[in-house]
Amino acid sequence: MTSDVTTGTGQEAAGLARRTRTELLRRVEDRLRSHLADERDHWAEVHEGAVVPVDALAALIASGGKRIRPAFCLTGHLAAGGDPDDPGIVAAAAALEMLHLSALVHDDVLDDSGLRRGVPTVHTRFTALHESHGWQGEARRYGEGVALLVGDLALVYAEELMTHAPGTAVPEWNRLRSEVMIGQYMDVHAAAEFSADPRTSRLIARIKSGRYTIHRPLVVGASAAGRADLAPAFEEYGEAVGEAFQLRDDLLDAFGDQAATGKPTGLDLSRHKMTPLLGWAMQRDEHIHTLMTEPGHTPDEVRRRLVETGVPADVERHIEGLVERGRKAIADAPIAPVWRTELAEMAHRVAHRTT
Amino acid sequence: MTSDVTTGTGQEAAGLARRTRTELLRRVEDRLRSHLADERDHWAEVHEGAVVPVDALAALIASGGKRIRPAFCLTGHLAAGGDPDDPGIVAAAAALEMLHLSALVHDDVLDDSGLRRGVPTVHTRFTALHESHGWQGEARRYGEGVALLVGDLALVYAEELMTHAPGTAVPEWNRLRSEVMIGQYMDVHAAAEFSADPRTSRLIARIKSGRYTIHRPLVVGASAAGRADLAPAFEEYGEAVGEAFQLRDDLLDAFGDQAATGKPTGLDLSRHKMTPLLGWAMQRDEHIHTLMTEPGHTPDEVRRRLVETGVPADVERHIEGLVERGRKAIADAPIAPVWRTELAEMAHRVAHRTT
Repeated sequence: MTSDVTTGTGQEAAGLARRTRTELLRRVEDRLRSHLADERDHWAEVHEGAVVPVDALAALIASGGKRIRPAFCLTGHLAAGGDPDDPGIVAAAAALEMLHLSALVHDDVLDDSGLRRGVPTVHTRFTALHESHGWQGEARRYGEGVALLVGDLALVYAEELMTHAPGTAVPEWNRLRSEVMIGQYMDVHAAAEFSADPRTSRLIARIKSGRYTIHRPLVVGASAAGRADLAPAFEEYGEAVGEAFQLRDDLLDAFGDQAATGKPTGLDLSRHKMTPLLGWAMQRDEHIHTLMTEPGHTPDEVRRRLVETGVPADVERHIEGLVERGRKAIADAPIAPVWRTELAEMAHRVAHRTT
Repeated sequence: MTSDVTTGTGQEAAGLARRTRTELLRRVEDRLRSHLADERDHWAEVHEGAVVPVDALAALIASGGKRIRPAFCLTGHLAAGGDPDDPGIVAAAAALEMLHLSALVHDDVLDDSGLRRGVPTVHTRFTALHESHGWQGEARRYGEGVALLVGDLALVYAEELMTHAPGTAVPEWNRLRSEVMIGQYMDVHAAAEFSADPRTSRLIARIKSGRYTIHRPLVVGASAAGRADLAPAFEEYGEAVGEAFQLRDDLLDAFGDQAATGKPTGLDLSRHKMTPLLGWAMQRDEHIHTLMTEPGHTPDEVRRRLVETGVPADVERHIEGLVERGRKAIADAPIAPVWRTELAEMAHRVAHRTT
């Protein structure tokens, strides 16, 4: 691969740019799998039972996923003129995905979610294993305990991968991780309090999801290429497109197709997740609070009432505005035109995804 | 401070060596507190509620603890002739303590332990908070969820601290962390299966406790000083003294004084923790298995039966042998005599502690 792709224009350059990123994404996949395979080999020699948490992570990698964070990290790197042959950027992108695995496994415990990528979640699977064997102690504590440790292990592996990334990417990586943890805490807490406060719910969505998915991965990629100057443009783009990503997530949870998303829909509603979608709807219609907290109401009732507030349609329009804001943010950024176009298309895809 | 302390002999040199380490331990304490204070300042500006997980960690730091891991890390560094003025070693020692905080918070969830350092554990405290406010959702899920995220945050902060440590310490740090997670999983799993297999229970004790507490921190310290050559001697010392540490832990849990340890005693027994102590005892007396798994038996019955097997007395003798093995392991190590003496004394203190 050469870095000519970052300076070209036109269709040919666009094709080459995408092929470069596809090839790098393949290497990220290899890196994730080989890291886990090496760890498995190491632990298999120590004890036959020690490989179980490693295998749980390998199964999660194999079950698919959109690899959005690696894609934005690589895009940020290539758009910044970074060397596509630098193995450090592959390590950084793999670290972002491994961190995401950790967040998914822990998140599924926090939400008590039963499905992820169409297969049973880690804590659900190990709880069932405990039950079927009739082991000592409480099955739920065992299942959630194993998931806690599997998620911890993924976090540790993310750090190991990151030690192979360029040091210039580390400050952004540090910001990203503590944001995810604090954002998750605020999310859990807001669901418990369940008070409509759109300022807080938008802040949570921004910290725990938007920044973590788009803004920070882009800047990790650009910083790895030594282009800290791109941080402001990528921040503006990432904050806007990240919010669009999160709002689509909320819509998919409330109204999406479980067969397509691979995870249960309506879970945010049943878990009292104070999403911006819900926060706005509750401000317009106080009765929604009652529908959600008092027994005897079905999720479909809540959904109908949500639609009647007009908020979902407004959110769709808001998403359009955010995609447009993202495009404008990079309109004058000092990056090759081919990557400007690609970032605009990525904003559209992220905002209109169906899974 | 000067590094003369590492070459002296006699009482004066011993005093100076210890004062140097005490001063470094004070800096570790400052580093831990200032890291959390800086994070608190940052998050307080973002949202008033965002500081809660940071405060939970600060409270845990303030509640005390023995700082065994930082002490071994600093000792390894100074014994290796490392520069006491290197701020990197303070960062590494602080990282080890922060990682330990993460493990404690998560461990207390895994064990459903109510007390730590004499105060309620994180998940217990947040579960009670949820109950007293009558918030939405299940109080247990909230409390354990917050503890999960507080532990994750500590793990992230440990990594941040470690980025300021010498790069030569990183490989050992990587080994240490994945060992803790896999060891914890094996521990949780062995408790669920509850089959007496002393080989597995000793392996678990070695991986999740001994290595993590003594062997790896010593080698992290020595590697930070560029003295990888000390790894074999420190490994031999650490494996022996680490096992002594763990066996004392098991004895304190089974027969110790809760007022002194600051955590509930008898918890390993009630959680079916397959400690080596229990594994050996069950091999000699099958009835112990029944006493522990069938209802109607008190912890005192189990304790009496344990003593009757003669295993606790044998374990005391075994601990003596391990301390001696530790001393021999460093008898010819290329370190200053003052640190050889100090390490021998540390082995004794660790093996005979009462808290």
